[in-house]
Amino acid sequence: MAVNTRILLAARPEGAPKPSDFRIEDIPVPEPRDGDVLLKILYLSLDPYMRGRMSTAKSYAAPAAIGDVMPGGTVARVETSRHPDFVEGDIVLSYSGWQSYALSKGAGLRKLDPAVAPVSTALGVLGMPGFTAWSGLLLIGEPKPGETVVVAAASGAVGSAVGQIARIKGARAVGIAGGPEKCAYVRDALGFDAAIDHHAVDFPAQLAAACPNGIDVYFENVGGAVWEAVFPLLNKHARVPVCGLIAGYNATSPSGSGPDRLPVLMREILSRSLLIRGFIQTEFAAAHEAQFLREAGAWVGSGQLRYKEDIVEGLANAPEAFIGLLEGRNFGKLIIRVAP
Amino acid sequence: MAVNTRILLAARPEGAPKPSDFRIEDIPVPEPRDGDVLLKILYLSLDPYMRGRMSTAKSYAAPAAIGDVMPGGTVARVETSRHPDFVEGDIVLSYSGWQSYALSKGAGLRKLDPAVAPVSTALGVLGMPGFTAWSGLLLIGEPKPGETVVVAAASGAVGSAVGQIARIKGARAVGIAGGPEKCAYVRDALGFDAAIDHHAVDFPAQLAAACPNGIDVYFENVGGAVWEAVFPLLNKHARVPVCGLIAGYNATSPSGSGPDRLPVLMREILSRSLLIRGFIQTEFAAAHEAQFLREAGAWVGSGQLRYKEDIVEGLANAPEAFIGLLEGRNFGKLIIRVAP
Repeated sequence: MAVNTRILLAARPEGAPKPSDFRIEDIPVPEPRDGDVLLKILYLSLDPYMRGRMSTAKSYAAPAAIGDVMPGGTVARVETSRHPDFVEGDIVLSYSGWQSYALSKGAGLRKLDPAVAPVSTALGVLGMPGFTAWSGLLLIGEPKPGETVVVAAASGAVGSAVGQIARIKGARAVGIAGGPEKCAYVRDALGFDAAIDHHAVDFPAQLAAACPNGIDVYFENVGGAVWEAVFPLLNKHARVPVCGLIAGYNATSPSGSGPDRLPVLMREILSRSLLIRGFIQTEFAAAHEAQFLREAGAWVGSGQLRYKEDIVEGLANAPEAFIGLLEGRNFGKLIIRVAP
Repeated sequence: MAVNTRILLAARPEGAPKPSDFRIEDIPVPEPRDGDVLLKILYLSLDPYMRGRMSTAKSYAAPAAIGDVMPGGTVARVETSRHPDFVEGDIVLSYSGWQSYALSKGAGLRKLDPAVAPVSTALGVLGMPGFTAWSGLLLIGEPKPGETVVVAAASGAVGSAVGQIARIKGARAVGIAGGPEKCAYVRDALGFDAAIDHHAVDFPAQLAAACPNGIDVYFENVGGAVWEAVFPLLNKHARVPVCGLIAGYNATSPSGSGPDRLPVLMREILSRSLLIRGFIQTEFAAAHEAQFLREAGAWVGSGQLRYKEDIVEGLANAPEAFIGLLEGRNFGKLIIRVAP
């Protein structure tokens, strides 16, 4: 008899998550009733926002409860359908979490066509991370031709799309990544105008040199030391869409020890007419997701928008892979292959 | 022979400006040549932004040089015209600074019609402060009916317009002001839904009680303790146009002593999808000033947009009046009557 392997939140992490914050368990695969589809999970997406779900600190979504299945986006195959809209073998995007099977009533499922693009891209370049990049860059950042766009985690799912879309729109793209291998990929494979290694001791000076005309759009997904290097370079009327702050996700204290940088930030917001705007891509989905899928699908097809997947085999390896994601150990969109 | 009395920047203030940071001098009234108009200044506007002009700290405009006439907006009468577009007796808005006469080549002058509104309003509700309120509130804040708009310095030139325009647009307006007299004016004469005295020991609790549904738009013109009280009340998707930070203008150190509030701010920008946007009204002038003058003029005419002027007699009193402005001692738009 088939088992459903699930990974539960076992404890709220103090600082960086540890393997013992997760618990793995096997239970029977659930029985679909009328109106249900039984999904067999093929791919599980691992994303930085999941760190927020493990914590009770206020965030843009409610935390997972202790004992809950860890949440997450998934690509699944319909094993059994008792729902009129789905048949066995359909491949769907679902939000089934860290487990190998799930029931669904059909709401929120989106059918995927394997002929259009590899279905795993629905978790990356043609999914939530891609739409995060597209919406934050184009709807908030609004880069103009010739302007300079900077993004960190530039070899990752969001950052790689930000820089490439910036270039498609005629802007200069400067990527920040960790280590020479990732930087070479960002520059050579993705075609960014420059790539800077944030491990370099003279990282701020290298970034300044790569942005001789300053920074017009900084797509913020990391915070921390990268923000410190970017901030002095922001031009008048620069735009800063904020979709993540991964550098602080494992912080145990909400505030730093000082000096207090808030007054300087506010003064510069005023004197440089800066725009800073937090966002979650869901707010733009109703109005813009179809356009994104059309445009990004075409760019992927034409080779203008490339992507890299870092696929880890086996659900049991998800906790370790997720811990590595928060440390920047992945290289490309991190995905767990749950079933072949 | 007529003299031109001018007030010059004598020294850069350390902290709060002192009378000795200004110098008054009398020189002969200049002689207009072909293409010139000679302006006799009637009213001089005093505004918080002038503190920035006295300092070399980076700001949105270049500082005045030591020995320069202090800059400022003025309403003037054409005494002598050798310019084809102006005749003696025309009343114009000009940017002539702290002096009693000035030459102009006509560029940047705007003729005022005393039959439409008292000409001093071109320095206040129908001038730069009014347009600051209108553009920041409507183009950045975008209040929707039923939303809560909060503004400080609510009896002042900008704040009073912000709250009244918010109400015209169907939002709730909560004003913050210093002392019971100003609060009563904000509530009773200007019609704000609530007015809170920031001198009250339980000011944050009073503000929270006046905003039972949180804050959707905070029009930032003061910073400091008001920001501290406002920040926890900002709703998801709240908008914060930033046009001034008067509470910090006399600060001698750019950063506070800590703890560092920047990480908390960025985290809340992300988790509440906040928008923070610094602006100077000039960026909106070309596209929107005519619309503002039309709308605000109509609202002033209908009594929906009221204003209060705090008129101080005599140019020699400008330094003391300006020092008081930075301490909140004015009550309404501060204007120097330079000539009757």
